[in-house]
Amino acid sequence: MSAGMPTLKDAIEAISALRRHGGRVHCLTNDVAQAFTANVLLACGAAPSMTSSPREVATFTAGAGSLSVNLGTLQTERMEAIRIAVSAARQHNVPFVLDPVKADISPPRLAFARDILGGGPAILRVNASEAEALGAGRESQLAPCMAVTGEIDRISTSEGTLTVANGTPLMDRVTAVGCAQGAVMAALLIHSETPAQAALAAILWFAIAGESAAGTAGGPGSFAANFIDRLYDLPLTSIEERASIR
Amino acid sequence: MSAGMPTLKDAIEAISALRRHGGRVHCLTNDVAQAFTANVLLACGAAPSMTSSPREVATFTAGAGSLSVNLGTLQTERMEAIRIAVSAARQHNVPFVLDPVKADISPPRLAFARDILGGGPAILRVNASEAEALGAGRESQLAPCMAVTGEIDRISTSEGTLTVANGTPLMDRVTAVGCAQGAVMAALLIHSETPAQAALAAILWFAIAGESAAGTAGGPGSFAANFIDRLYDLPLTSIEERASIR
Amino acid sequence: MSAGMPTLKDAIEAISALRRHGGRVHCLTNDVAQAFTANVLLACGAAPSMTSSPREVATFTAGAGSLSVNLGTLQTERMEAIRIAVSAARQHNVPFVLDPVKADISPPRLAFARDILGGGPAILRVNASEAEALGAGRESQLAPCMAVTGEIDRISTSEGTLTVANGTPLMDRVTAVGCAQGAVMAALLIHSETPAQAALAAILWFAIAGESAAGTAGGPGSFAANFIDRLYDLPLTSIEERASIR
Repeated sequence: MSAGMPTLKDAIEAISALRRHGGRVHCLTNDVAQAFTANVLLACGAAPSMTSSPREVATFTAGAGSLSVNLGTLQTERMEAIRIAVSAARQHNVPFVLDPVKADISPPRLAFARDILGGGPAILRVNASEAEALGAGRESQLAPCMAVTGEIDRISTSEGTLTVANGTPLMDRVTAVGCAQGAVMAALLIHSETPAQAALAAILWFAIAGESAAGTAGGPGSFAANFIDRLYDLPLTSIEERASIR
Repeated sequence: MSAGMPTLKDAIEAISALRRHGGRVHCLTNDVAQAFTANVLLACGAAPSMTSSPREVATFTAGAGSLSVNLGTLQTERMEAIRIAVSAARQHNVPFVLDPVKADISPPRLAFARDILGGGPAILRVNASEAEALGAGRESQLAPCMAVTGEIDRISTSEGTLTVANGTPLMDRVTAVGCAQGAVMAALLIHSETPAQAALAAILWFAIAGESAAGTAGGPGSFAANFIDRLYDLPLTSIEERASIR
Repeated sequence: MSAGMPTLKDAIEAISALRRHGGRVHCLTNDVAQAFTANVLLACGAAPSMTSSPREVATFTAGAGSLSVNLGTLQTERMEAIRIAVSAARQHNVPFVLDPVKADISPPRLAFARDILGGGPAILRVNASEAEALGAGRESQLAPCMAVTGEIDRISTSEGTLTVANGTPLMDRVTAVGCAQGAVMAALLIHSETPAQAALAAILWFAIAGESAAGTAGGPGSFAANFIDRLYDLPLTSIEERASIR
């Protein structure tokens, strides 16, 4: 773990604070992920609001604790709503997380992702292909905190890098787990001193809740329900015991 | 319980009739709630139709047993669809339920809710803040039946008021439970003599199925599945035994 | 079973190949069915992509193994996306499945279904009422393979007809099971020699996973989770033992 990076203790404090104090996250996410994301936020102690109507999104964002922006399923009205929300977030100092899902596959999505990156997300959540498409490299940090997810998750800031080696393959068999993680990073921003603290907390919470949920799952259907149950009640001591951070 | 208000027996008869005879409810609900609402209606014995396409919604509404209108996530096309559906409902005597979710937070949603209230819903389903924003008071009854939900649910008509004190906090940890309840009120309108009978039946069914589901739930994920199971098979005698109506 | 029609062994080979080799299906489905469809595809070993944005759908379709088109909830932008996707599919030889849900109820949907039929789906998945509305009869075959679902499922091609008599009534109590089946037919097209092989494989897989899931379900909520678990791990020998094909 690099100096200046968040510690396991920091991560646990953010989780504990979210569970105790809550906070509202406004989510502009793809329509496949909406219901699961709302349920994950509720299980984690946060309050979701989800409207993607351009006529409403500024009000909902201005009063939120944080904003989560996910670029799947870019309907025209949702793109307009995202621009309005990011602008409202800047104006009202509402921090936001950007997840440019599959921007590596779709050129218009990549162009739009670059635009929204200009709005200054606190956390950019990507996988390796998306990071490469956006031009991230060893030397270029595209946001104060980048969370590059994969078999090993990697968090980087200008202060350094750390990795987390927890999780279960069943998480890849349930749609929207990654999208929901971006929203939980946003919820944790409300209770974190740095974006990297929120990113680390969300990654550990998901990975270790996933490990625990997989233990009693009969497949991806029961895993999804178990996973939400464990986000809700996972003991902080389990995170302490199982966290594999470097 | 005030004279002229529905009784526990009336509520149970409506539930029993819906389970035996079914009926189609056309639902214009927010996109977060759509799948859960459809699954809840199916578990309750009703048949959902869900399209929010303006070019189709008049046909689907005209032939439905009832209509459920929920104002979350107001995209332009959905607003147009709601206006068309409410107009078709009036023309064909299809009763409808209005749930103006979070109209207290968003001024354009509040204005739209007032418009749709003018269309004459049989039941207005609100929480206390939404009711206040819409101008409801002790003296003003905004619809033939108002169902004001909260820790204690309150049903009021020009005949009087009654309250239900059942339920479980886990219901607040699953998204769209309230939205789905509005749709079940609509389904029960098909088999009720008064709107208040449908509202009471839906409130009791949800609250007592929720209590039963919570008993075996490991958290909000398994609760959501259990809750649908209990809506499906909750014995009517459980409702009789546990109902706390005043 | 008619000569020239797929056998049980053909169906099992397609399922086995999908589980081993995967493949991406682009899905243009109604917004109620999106999340469940994605989860079903993941459980079956396929990779879903779901965007219905007209500006992205040609790219996503051109690179997919197959396309699944479902006509529920016809918003303007989704209709445009469907036209673009079907055109991209023809151009890039990506086979597609068409499911014109409830086209018998809604005249504009029926007209649109006829248009899309002109694009040449490999499989037309319908129920009896939809088939009739589209003008199918004993003599007219509207696509290389028609899968007419019902209590008994019927697959027909110019070579002949076969029927499958498996399944459980609980499948009708969960929304989007049929829609998801269309997407799995598309996934199986990637690993089948004929459309009828893919249709038979999907019908058997769903029906027998459903029978198995119903055995331990406490209602439609737990059934939905069990069903996804069984799609994921149903032994091929169970399909062999239980298949009721004529």
